[in-house]
Amino acid sequence: MITGKNYIGNSPSNLGTKSFTTFSPIENKENEWTFFEANEKEIENALKLADKAFKEFQKTSGTSRALFLNTIADEIEALGDILIAAYCAETGLPEGRAKGERGRTMGQLRSFANLVQEGSWVKATIDTAIPERQPLPKVDIRKMMAPLGPVVVFGASNFPLAYSTAGGDTASALAAGCPVVVKSHPMHAATGELVAQAIINAAKKTNMPDGVFSNLNSSGIEVGKQLVNHPLTKAVGFTGSINGGRALFDMAANRKEPIPVFAEMGSVNPVIILPKALHSKGEDWAKTYAGSITLGTGQFCTNPGLLFALNDENLKSFTKVLSEELLKIDPSCMLHPAIESNYSRNKAVMLKQDGLSVLANFEAATKPNFAKQTVVKVSGEKFIKNPDLHQEVFGPFSMIVSCKDEEELIKAIESMEGQLTGTIISEDGEIDSSSVLVSTLQSKVGRLIFNGVPTGVEVCPSMQHGGPYPASTDSRFTAVGIHAIDRWVRPISFQNWPNHLLPDALNNENTLQIERLVNGKLTKEVL
Amino acid sequence: MITGKNYIGNSPSNLGTKSFTTFSPIENKENEWTFFEANEKEIENALKLADKAFKEFQKTSGTSRALFLNTIADEIEALGDILIAAYCAETGLPEGRAKGERGRTMGQLRSFANLVQEGSWVKATIDTAIPERQPLPKVDIRKMMAPLGPVVVFGASNFPLAYSTAGGDTASALAAGCPVVVKSHPMHAATGELVAQAIINAAKKTNMPDGVFSNLNSSGIEVGKQLVNHPLTKAVGFTGSINGGRALFDMAANRKEPIPVFAEMGSVNPVIILPKALHSKGEDWAKTYAGSITLGTGQFCTNPGLLFALNDENLKSFTKVLSEELLKIDPSCMLHPAIESNYSRNKAVMLKQDGLSVLANFEAATKPNFAKQTVVKVSGEKFIKNPDLHQEVFGPFSMIVSCKDEEELIKAIESMEGQLTGTIISEDGEIDSSSVLVSTLQSKVGRLIFNGVPTGVEVCPSMQHGGPYPASTDSRFTAVGIHAIDRWVRPISFQNWPNHLLPDALNNENTLQIERLVNGKLTKEVL
Repeated sequence: MITGKNYIGNSPSNLGTKSFTTFSPIENKENEWTFFEANEKEIENALKLADKAFKEFQKTSGTSRALFLNTIADEIEALGDILIAAYCAETGLPEGRAKGERGRTMGQLRSFANLVQEGSWVKATIDTAIPERQPLPKVDIRKMMAPLGPVVVFGASNFPLAYSTAGGDTASALAAGCPVVVKSHPMHAATGELVAQAIINAAKKTNMPDGVFSNLNSSGIEVGKQLVNHPLTKAVGFTGSINGGRALFDMAANRKEPIPVFAEMGSVNPVIILPKALHSKGEDWAKTYAGSITLGTGQFCTNPGLLFALNDENLKSFTKVLSEELLKIDPSCMLHPAIESNYSRNKAVMLKQDGLSVLANFEAATKPNFAKQTVVKVSGEKFIKNPDLHQEVFGPFSMIVSCKDEEELIKAIESMEGQLTGTIISEDGEIDSSSVLVSTLQSKVGRLIFNGVPTGVEVCPSMQHGGPYPASTDSRFTAVGIHAIDRWVRPISFQNWPNHLLPDALNNENTLQIERLVNGKLTKEVL
Repeated sequence: MITGKNYIGNSPSNLGTKSFTTFSPIENKENEWTFFEANEKEIENALKLADKAFKEFQKTSGTSRALFLNTIADEIEALGDILIAAYCAETGLPEGRAKGERGRTMGQLRSFANLVQEGSWVKATIDTAIPERQPLPKVDIRKMMAPLGPVVVFGASNFPLAYSTAGGDTASALAAGCPVVVKSHPMHAATGELVAQAIINAAKKTNMPDGVFSNLNSSGIEVGKQLVNHPLTKAVGFTGSINGGRALFDMAANRKEPIPVFAEMGSVNPVIILPKALHSKGEDWAKTYAGSITLGTGQFCTNPGLLFALNDENLKSFTKVLSEELLKIDPSCMLHPAIESNYSRNKAVMLKQDGLSVLANFEAATKPNFAKQTVVKVSGEKFIKNPDLHQEVFGPFSMIVSCKDEEELIKAIESMEGQLTGTIISEDGEIDSSSVLVSTLQSKVGRLIFNGVPTGVEVCPSMQHGGPYPASTDSRFTAVGIHAIDRWVRPISFQNWPNHLLPDALNNENTLQIERLVNGKLTKEVL
């Protein structure tokens, strides 16, 4: 049942006076539920309880944390159609997408469950004593990863499940042993509450300490600000805009005790189509990219916002087909009127830029909150000179950058900021002779793609979802895949520590039977 | 030969007009050499050259980087007595310490050489394609660690070799494939120049690109500021004071593109002596700690600055022996008059604090720049109330905190900021009944020590040298041991990438024969 309340650990709470509603962009009206915004007292309560829970939660075994995570997945599934209905009502996204994202969210939870159940993720490292060493004896030292403490998670507007309440940030933080306080996304607070209830049910069923998870509603920036500035908060996960992410990063860096913020802030995902590919398969790629640009109404952080190519006859046919294909696609609904107006505004700003020409612009009337797809073109020279052309237009918008030669193309890539992805479209091995171009692209991105589209982020250990700033605030970490857990843990060493007091991961018996680096050798052996 | 010049890559340079000298604290006079402070142009040149070198250096094989690192160690050794003499003249530290630190520095270089020679450190992670997967085919994705780019290293005053020019930060950054620009420490600029020459000789002998290493002199803060703010700088390593480290961290966080700063900023390293240990071995521990407090004139970031115990008769005998033993020790020379006056000033501030009593204070006249050791006592109650008592007094100074019961002791530990180390002295298993105390201490530190002293940082994979703020600016990394390389690298994924263009670490053939996580299984197999 959607109550609109906050959850301070397992307890619903509505101490504040402010409230807000969510909006159905398809029906173009407010949803029926009212949400109570968390007040200062509730924020304080949530973090105090999280800190208290941390003392116990950090000591839980991998097996019990795995059970907790798997039970969250079960409970989300058990929500059934109510969850799907709330998701659709709050996002305008189709049911198929809702179900797909639910599956992905459950898959993420289960993959972290497997990770902590197996246990080697703590990177146990052991160097045994050499008492007879000269000139000084060597002491026994053992190291493993331990959780940082309470993590505050800010959900994304565009992934109400997979990057929100029980999304990758929450799943990886809980797996690490960190309690989580979610600042629920105001555009899908009902979806958020349902998922929060699933997490709380799972926490109760698996005997997790009260406070291991809290969910706070907020439609403004105050709650988030207080959460990040609270001394008991030890790390922050965020998915969203550059402005939002940077603001949180700055707050966290300015604290008396600075804390890490991993903010994944989107990008324009440059795609480079090499000449032979443009010549021989230009039409196919144009069709593929018309789909990728409009997928999910262009509301993906991996949306291909920039297509680079050399300016020749083949580019003309490519742009012609791309424009035609794009206009054939029925416009679709954006997540919220604010997202749609933001898209229209960003696009309008873009269209005013010097040297920009419009190739295709969906003109016909649409339903309210539907996005009209647009593709534009600019020269490499203009692109290099004008950083405003490098900005993200969140929605079904893409820019073709037509370069006079490879040198200009390299300079154009060099002029860009960090990106989540970079794609090369190549035919007949022409990529082999573009090593400078490829390494320039590589220096800018977290993930390189060959002959494909950037949309679609596979959840697997080899996925890097992050990248040089501003794609993320720390390129050394990923938001997707098992290594996302590394954001929330720190190494701790035990020197000459009594064996019976060592964590299981480090004891002589290797109770957990995990892989450990013992005197420089990876092994499961006991000592 | 000590020229006093900067090194922009392999080329000596003295474009600026400012100069400075170093000081021999033992002889209490300026050393003969004059150093030319780097000017803006030289900073610009060094970073441009580093950026250019990066394009080539990042592609060098582990084998050639290993050769480079081992050759640096050889070249440092080949400097022979000149290096030891410069070290002693610029620090007042004895020859034995100089030689020990040289050995440690070479050992660090060789351990990173072994790491990159072997190659598995890149954490190669491969998920192969499943074209037939429903509803969507799975693409081939492969991930590995890649270097961030030019790293700026700030050396420490108290470790002119092991934490400076070719110290752990430089060794780990070069191992990762990052060019290094060192901001030489002004107190030991001659030692720094000699080591810089060794690195440059090694770079030439092993055909590394010019600019892989630069060394810049500076006696003020301007050079460091410009280095951290330069857009081509991609990360910063620092060892030193909280004020200095935090200033760099703030600058880096406020850049348009924020960059990671790992600053290891010292700590007061609490030691808890449990009652039975105090009773049965108090005298032994008092003698051991008199040595640890004064080791290296107390100028270690792991110096035990706080000794906690319960207030009973045994504490009285312990403090008596500690005081006597401490006063028996001959005062020794500090690194620089500025360090000595800083020590005297910090100590004077401390001695004025309410409720503090002096147990032992070396009174006799000493040579100039020698430090007079001091041990003081305060109640747990006063300690908890007054954070000024928690501050580091860099030198042979320690404070006994006498607590009325374990509850107060736990509160005292809880009141502290983050620390590099925390030590428990225990007898007859009494630690077993102090689990809250131990976990409180654990939450504050990077390394726990049982029945030992915090001084002495073993260089091995299991060492954590870092800790919660302000021990370091990011508790998720270490400054010592092979995992120090993680500070300078980021994951990059290759999706559907042609096998012949993949880095060796990721190709089907497993050319490097390294351990890789392939479809979730750690293996050296080829694909």
